[in-house]
Amino acid sequence: MTQSDKQVSGEDSLIARYFKPLATDPGAFNLDDDAGALKAAGEEIVVTTDAIVEGVHFLAGDPPDTLARKALRVNLSDIAAKGAVPAGFVLTVALRAVEEAWLKPFAAALGEDAAHYGCPLLGGDTVSTPGPLMISITAFGRVPDGCMVHRSGAKAGDRVFVTGTIGDAALGLDVLRGGPVAAALAEDAAARDWLASRYRIPQPRNALALAVREHASAAMDVSDGLAGDLAKLCAASGVSAEIELPRIPHSRAAASLLAQGVVGVEALIAGGDDYEILCAVPQDRADAFALAAQGAGVAVAAIGRIVSGRVGPRFLDGQGREQTLERLSYSHF
Amino acid sequence: MTQSDKQVSGEDSLIARYFKPLATDPGAFNLDDDAGALKAAGEEIVVTTDAIVEGVHFLAGDPPDTLARKALRVNLSDIAAKGAVPAGFVLTVALRAVEEAWLKPFAAALGEDAAHYGCPLLGGDTVSTPGPLMISITAFGRVPDGCMVHRSGAKAGDRVFVTGTIGDAALGLDVLRGGPVAAALAEDAAARDWLASRYRIPQPRNALALAVREHASAAMDVSDGLAGDLAKLCAASGVSAEIELPRIPHSRAAASLLAQGVVGVEALIAGGDDYEILCAVPQDRADAFALAAQGAGVAVAAIGRIVSGRVGPRFLDGQGREQTLERLSYSHF
Repeated sequence: MTQSDKQVSGEDSLIARYFKPLATDPGAFNLDDDAGALKAAGEEIVVTTDAIVEGVHFLAGDPPDTLARKALRVNLSDIAAKGAVPAGFVLTVALRAVEEAWLKPFAAALGEDAAHYGCPLLGGDTVSTPGPLMISITAFGRVPDGCMVHRSGAKAGDRVFVTGTIGDAALGLDVLRGGPVAAALAEDAAARDWLASRYRIPQPRNALALAVREHASAAMDVSDGLAGDLAKLCAASGVSAEIELPRIPHSRAAASLLAQGVVGVEALIAGGDDYEILCAVPQDRADAFALAAQGAGVAVAAIGRIVSGRVGPRFLDGQGREQTLERLSYSHF
Repeated sequence: MTQSDKQVSGEDSLIARYFKPLATDPGAFNLDDDAGALKAAGEEIVVTTDAIVEGVHFLAGDPPDTLARKALRVNLSDIAAKGAVPAGFVLTVALRAVEEAWLKPFAAALGEDAAHYGCPLLGGDTVSTPGPLMISITAFGRVPDGCMVHRSGAKAGDRVFVTGTIGDAALGLDVLRGGPVAAALAEDAAARDWLASRYRIPQPRNALALAVREHASAAMDVSDGLAGDLAKLCAASGVSAEIELPRIPHSRAAASLLAQGVVGVEALIAGGDDYEILCAVPQDRADAFALAAQGAGVAVAAIGRIVSGRVGPRFLDGQGREQTLERLSYSHF
């Protein structure tokens, strides 16, 4: 073995084999450098980072292609909620061992999503770990200077909107864990699979980013439970909110489990992993926002209003009675 | 407990308590948002990411303040080697448990380094893990558009420079593990402590960044062993190099261990964790570079020359005889 052979270490050959094909952007320098570069003429770079850990954010044995998509998409969801256009990402993977059967589908799916969302790989770090698999992604987006949408701009009178359907991912996690939802759907493999896929593969609403930037006074992505995330948005804006529970959009599967009493509304709106966009839109822009969303092909629902006050958001049932929630969101600690 | 109390989860209060004090940059939005923002008028953003894992990059029980510094500094070292000025970083920490005795000194040291190097915290993610502690940082630097220094620009005839001293960190790791170096230094606690500190607390050469940008044709940081990293720089540039082993700078402790035969030169130049800068400088700029380095207070040594050819770099002893190395660098896999 010559020295020039030896210079390609196991780590380097792993990167060359699986990740270089993804590094299509000129700023990635073919992953042959210490750093990537991000051009930013006249724009502001929005930076977000989210990590997923085996046994915490995903289950041991989850398919590698879905892990790749989830790891990238949870970050794309933040980029979208800030009204930004994806610009690229860096990847850190901590692996116990190099297994082609895992890495190949992981990298292929990551490359597909990177291409689909226009978010190229710019660099990364591949490290060994004796512990659980961990995937950490830092993603970048571009907005015109000063145009990032914050959590803090909501005003009393604004309408509260949310995209997609809420609670499916929490139900999907219960399905994968063999909990009560799995039992209730024992005869309905299609519903079980669909809910599991909602947990495993978020659908970030990047198509809505421009409408959010144009119309929303405040926005965030719903990742730790709608109720808790709304409370955060209200706290950041110094306002409160009144949400009409019957207006919160649920999938047919979730609505049916709710109607049967298999789960309560709290399990849906305090469950995590929705990766939908929650935003406040001034009343006089609500119609324009809804139209823009329709044009972007993203379902949005008006679920309530921002009100003045510093108390936490109130959740009202169909008769206007306040429902108290024991738990608002998922917390790691 | 009111709902507004409940909205502060354990994770949020952890972030508020330990990391918000570090988020002094306006682009961090006090860590109250989904993302940070990086202004970049007319500049290019250099992006680098490096993770450290307990049991792999550091030892269980290593002091939290040194871990914080190492996690940030290994990234600052990449920023420096690219000729860039630090602009900020995002932090991901995977923790088994929230322990004030660990988090408080960790955050304090991180804040000190962030302030010292002008590299503010812009955001992060704090997750729980059942496994080893892991700290992943993505750091940003600014360079004038198109001025990032690459690995790929070295030309035959360029002088090869390296900063600081090489091999101390590898010796320090041996000290901490109680290996042969620890045994040889059994009577010299000061040398043991000094070597251990070289492993635990890198000294990134950010003071040299402007000189690198102005004079170097190619540069990288030395993190996986000088020999292997030089091979990478040569491969990226399509050149080879001739290095005079006696010119490689070693600390007094390392030189003494080498002279006593406790370690061979390979242990020093193929060991990792130096976090020095390796660069190629055109012959007619070598003096100006050395002067600029002196002005910046960073010791640099000319250790050889870039030569044409595609073979791996050659390492020559004091008599001009080539020494073959069995191992060039550290690899994770």
